[in-house]
Amino acid sequence: MLKGIRGMFLDFVDDPFYEDEKKCVRFLADGLLVIENGTIKELGLYENIFSKYRNCQVDHYPGYLILPGFIDAHVHYSQMKIIASYGKKLLDWLGSYVFPEENKFKDYEYARAAASLFLDELLRNGTTTAAVFTTVHPQSVDAFFEESNKRDMRMIAGKVMMDRQAPHYLLDTTEQSYEESKRLIRKWHGNGRQLYAVTPRFAITSTRQQLNMAGRLKEEFPGVYIHTHLAENVDEIRLTLDLFPDCADYVKVYEESGLVTDKSIFAHGIHLSDSEMKRLSKAGSAVAFCPTSNLFLGSGLFNLAKAKSRANPVHVGVGTDVGAGTTLSLLRTLDEAYKVLGLQNQKLSAFKGFYLLTLGGARGLSLEGKIGNFDAGKEADVVVLDPRTTSLQQHRNSHHPQPLSNIRDVSEQLFALMCLGDERVVVKTYVAGSVLYSRN
Amino acid sequence: MLKGIRGMFLDFVDDPFYEDEKKCVRFLADGLLVIENGTIKELGLYENIFSKYRNCQVDHYPGYLILPGFIDAHVHYSQMKIIASYGKKLLDWLGSYVFPEENKFKDYEYARAAASLFLDELLRNGTTTAAVFTTVHPQSVDAFFEESNKRDMRMIAGKVMMDRQAPHYLLDTTEQSYEESKRLIRKWHGNGRQLYAVTPRFAITSTRQQLNMAGRLKEEFPGVYIHTHLAENVDEIRLTLDLFPDCADYVKVYEESGLVTDKSIFAHGIHLSDSEMKRLSKAGSAVAFCPTSNLFLGSGLFNLAKAKSRANPVHVGVGTDVGAGTTLSLLRTLDEAYKVLGLQNQKLSAFKGFYLLTLGGARGLSLEGKIGNFDAGKEADVVVLDPRTTSLQQHRNSHHPQPLSNIRDVSEQLFALMCLGDERVVVKTYVAGSVLYSRN
Repeated sequence: MLKGIRGMFLDFVDDPFYEDEKKCVRFLADGLLVIENGTIKELGLYENIFSKYRNCQVDHYPGYLILPGFIDAHVHYSQMKIIASYGKKLLDWLGSYVFPEENKFKDYEYARAAASLFLDELLRNGTTTAAVFTTVHPQSVDAFFEESNKRDMRMIAGKVMMDRQAPHYLLDTTEQSYEESKRLIRKWHGNGRQLYAVTPRFAITSTRQQLNMAGRLKEEFPGVYIHTHLAENVDEIRLTLDLFPDCADYVKVYEESGLVTDKSIFAHGIHLSDSEMKRLSKAGSAVAFCPTSNLFLGSGLFNLAKAKSRANPVHVGVGTDVGAGTTLSLLRTLDEAYKVLGLQNQKLSAFKGFYLLTLGGARGLSLEGKIGNFDAGKEADVVVLDPRTTSLQQHRNSHHPQPLSNIRDVSEQLFALMCLGDERVVVKTYVAGSVLYSRN
Repeated sequence: MLKGIRGMFLDFVDDPFYEDEKKCVRFLADGLLVIENGTIKELGLYENIFSKYRNCQVDHYPGYLILPGFIDAHVHYSQMKIIASYGKKLLDWLGSYVFPEENKFKDYEYARAAASLFLDELLRNGTTTAAVFTTVHPQSVDAFFEESNKRDMRMIAGKVMMDRQAPHYLLDTTEQSYEESKRLIRKWHGNGRQLYAVTPRFAITSTRQQLNMAGRLKEEFPGVYIHTHLAENVDEIRLTLDLFPDCADYVKVYEESGLVTDKSIFAHGIHLSDSEMKRLSKAGSAVAFCPTSNLFLGSGLFNLAKAKSRANPVHVGVGTDVGAGTTLSLLRTLDEAYKVLGLQNQKLSAFKGFYLLTLGGARGLSLEGKIGNFDAGKEADVVVLDPRTTSLQQHRNSHHPQPLSNIRDVSEQLFALMCLGDERVVVKTYVAGSVLYSRN
């Protein structure tokens, strides 16, 4: 069955970090997106194509901006309840707040309720895909995927592995972790829109034996992802290198176990040497830039220009990293990204920012063929945004004509959205063509 | 006529930067605030004092937190429309966005409409007092004070002075500035709750002659404030010292004209030497810490620990600094403050944060005798906050008993408010005992 969405469309067809921004943006002041069975059939100017789809039911959003669903490149569904926990840096914060909360996810029902709430919050924020940490408990993975599958959301997740440097109640063993992960991969990877990530928490909490086992899983199931943390905090790095004295740097720790791949997602990567960045580039790995988290934990400032260099380009997505991150809104996360970069004399234009949330994020997660823009054949994950939600936004944007007609106005309005926006601006969230969130 | 407010009250009786936090906080799980003609008559436990006020009409807010109205130590009412303007650092940002917009304030009606909107936004954000920049046009000052006076808000503002380094259409002259300021001081300083600030924009845009004239006004009218900018950006500092080659540092430029006083408010003060901080301390001046602005313009990180040192304590308030700041919410501003300080290994506890928004801000603005806490005799500016406004906040705070019964829970809930809160959590804003903002 056909269904249509009409309004101002904006998406990206190329990477504005490397190509002329204007050529990367596709903007249709009055467009029609046609969806068939959850998949995009066509995007075109309304006046050019509507006659082909006369019998198609159309949701019309005059004055709103319609973008591909947002992609959160790194987030912990198990940490939503400990968001905004006071006063610690990474390692102490884990011990004081995270581990006690994660322990509760041994209870399947607790995990399932948390997953349901979390996914609904993502939808409220316009996020349709995420790379998600669960906990060490396999039931927390089942719970997550059950809920995600129910909503037909394109999600990446996997069982956390930890066999040391955490409370005993959260530790697994190499063998157990291997068996459980294998079962979960078979059950969930490619089940509907669900995708599996082999997920050692980080090098500190896994022995070499466990990291090697993670690499073995990736060999046995080449389609799965690797998802872990990397170079977030200076104390973490020091401890990592103490624990792996034969490794010259942090990336080497993961390389040794075959974990630096073109489907690896590394959260943070704040403190990486040129050599490490170069090796991530060569491997085709992705880094998740999590500015609200990096500021909240005082971890440091991510160097985006270095990651997106022409010489050694690394895929970058944006992560909220809740519970260390302070918001599930990727708009608020872009506001913080702009600031983190401004402190380093780097500028994040609106187009670059929204590219990272959509096509850039999709590329980072090796999902460019499935999601990230409105190309025909992709899955119809769509977010409808109202740039005049709050009284301040109404005042700020009152001089823009409606619909927007030139790319400069579009850019300015997007920038205001990324500075002033939050979940309130999300009017509708479509997942595979169905409305799963509706404002009010 | 008597009127009462009942609920959970929290305010400060001393400075948690110097005294044991718990001794600085006054928390009443079930309190009654009695107001007579806009002034606080008494705050006490409901059960202890309600019998004295049996005929008093009481607004009851179970489950909400009730605090003194917030104080914004630095903000430009003329810049609300250019909030979130892309891509510049201070001096270019002024030229590209600020000056063209400020030119519109030569029109009294434009200014009056902007002032009205601005003040309503402050109230929506729980802000009841602010130190406000207008523009160079005296009519922009009249417009502001007319609107503020109409709402009976305790406001500090004054005509901006600029006689160089700005577009010709925004320049005044020393003589004209003197005459206009004098008229405005006589008209507005002490008129109702309105207070006047002599307001040279900053040293770059005023000749020595004009700064001296500002100092002369302060001598002629000792009760008025001085409000200006200081040491925000490294290029600004360099240009300032080029323009005043006889001054060893930025503070000296203002000292020379008698502008460093115990009623001086300096916005930013990011890049101050030990000597400069010491001289501000000695003079009893205040610095407005504006974290969202400092990050948005990439100006730098304010060193709060240095300003609040025991050896050379400087008064500090928190400013939103809209339009360089990205929010009028002082809660969101505290979130950013926490992060700015975290990057410097400093911790901003919830109590310290809310102290800065209330009693600390009042002290910074020399208004401790009038506002800042619920002491009897003070003006009844009050904000009622709902810590469970959003679905995320409800989830985050669901384990807190209601009403809160111990200071640790209070601190935790306040911290969640400062990380996750924005204008949505403001249920009511009272100004001098009257409800001027009501949610929904």
